Amino acid sequence: MSVKLTVLKLGGSVITHKDKPLIPNLPAIRRLAKEIASAKLANLILVHGGGSFGHPLAKRYKIKEGFNGKASQLLGFAKTHQAMVALNKLVVDALIKEKIPAVAVSPSSLIMTKSERIHIFQEEPLTKLLQLGFVPVLFGDAVFDLDKGFTILSGDQLIAYLAIHYKAERIIVGVDVDGLFTGDPKANKEAKLLNHVALKELETLMQQIGEAQVHDVTGGMLSKIREMIPAVEKGVNVLVVNAAESKNLYKALKGERVLGTVISRL
Amino acid sequence: MSVKLTVLKLGGSVITHKDKPLIPNLPAIRRLAKEIASAKLANLILVHGGGSFGHPLAKRYKIKEGFNGKASQLLGFAKTHQAMVALNKLVVDALIKEKIPAVAVSPSSLIMTKSERIHIFQEEPLTKLLQLGFVPVLFGDAVFDLDKGFTILSGDQLIAYLAIHYKAERIIVGVDVDGLFTGDPKANKEAKLLNHVALKELETLMQQIGEAQVHDVTGGMLSKIREMIPAVEKGVNVLVVNAAESKNLYKALKGERVLGTVISRL
Repeated sequence: MSVKLTVLKLGGSVITHKDKPLIPNLPAIRRLAKEIASAKLANLILVHGGGSFGHPLAKRYKIKEGFNGKASQLLGFAKTHQAMVALNKLVVDALIKEKIPAVAVSPSSLIMTKSERIHIFQEEPLTKLLQLGFVPVLFGDAVFDLDKGFTILSGDQLIAYLAIHYKAERIIVGVDVDGLFTGDPKANKEAKLLNHVALKELETLMQQIGEAQVHDVTGGMLSKIREMIPAVEKGVNVLVVNAAESKNLYKALKGERVLGTVISRL
Repeated sequence: MSVKLTVLKLGGSVITHKDKPLIPNLPAIRRLAKEIASAKLANLILVHGGGSFGHPLAKRYKIKEGFNGKASQLLGFAKTHQAMVALNKLVVDALIKEKIPAVAVSPSSLIMTKSERIHIFQEEPLTKLLQLGFVPVLFGDAVFDLDKGFTILSGDQLIAYLAIHYKAERIIVGVDVDGLFTGDPKANKEAKLLNHVALKELETLMQQIGEAQVHDVTGGMLSKIREMIPAVEKGVNVLVVNAAESKNLYKALKGERVLGTVISRL
């Protein structure tokens, strides 16, 4: 792999209709597939979120909390995983239509967690897939956990892990806001977009928000960003862009100037 | 796992329309899901074939022959795998509808072959899944090969491997004929159904057919059966039944008397 790896996350809020369970945003999926194809990246891992496919089921059946020993929850796990498989199928189909050799990979088949953190990663098939020139398409998934039976592995934990493991050059996180703000841009007009955040500033920022006991005031962005810290520490640059707006993802993939937040070690 | 494992194969010819590319046989899939649910097995692995989903694409793009270095073939592999994922989704959806905690598992994510034979099997997630009480649903798949880049792993090779690995009690193979015949029942009225074949007889039978230079005169059954031999040698009983006929699979799963061919060590 001569070209350094890009790990791309497509947020569930971009590719599904947030408030409508199991309704995909097909125009967005198709547009993003076209943007990814136009960027012609040689070395790419794609991970998508669950949006209105995975989240409502995971919540209803308390999958994150682990296995409670009941058959009804086993069925709930099956439904949650299968909803993610269904969303994944739409994403992979759209990529294949744009002639990208995309291959669906279920995290639950390669990764096991221990107390919700990635503990076992059976890398061989994914490594081979990248070596051959495929684009693996993974997702936030219901996975097996050594302590709890099963749990939810977020796409965010996954991208940071894969970026570190495969020594990625960068992570691009496509979301439905313009980046990381100093507050919640929807509630607070004073909130400012941060164009660049160094690791040290990020830690201060997270501390401030933690002290204020206000979680997710930045539109859910901060908990995502927290997962990126280990990757940033290893030198992976993270770029958060608004993938709900046309052309942003393309520009980000091409390394062109684009509105968003860059998070880097320095 | 107190109850011994059953490995069930649903032939691609049963769950798809053989001569119509990418057309599933939905009534058959639904009926089989109901039969499996009625049998209430505690310990089950399900594997299905490709039928008109996987086979035409695998053939068109020469996936079995290995990677030829061309981008068009990479896309062909992606299409082949994705067609199988699509068929798998229909099977798993039908099982979940019958309240079976079925979980889609792509062989290409856990298994790598070497010269077309299973060489690496990363078992942990599948083992955990069985321990928790899920029904994994795998399929004949386009997989990565250590020598050839990629190839096709047949569902038949897979079921024998899994049956041996997990010390299964039995393999049930659901096909669209009544079992193993002494010849091709469609072409030859003299062909007789074999109700029971011991390992030693099977070897003689295969030799006879081999000597006659006639491949697959038994309706494609003999190449399937060949893959079962290592499992039969280890004491796994194999039952071939006509799953295209209503109730046969149910009876087979319940251990009731059913028309078909039993293959056993003695």
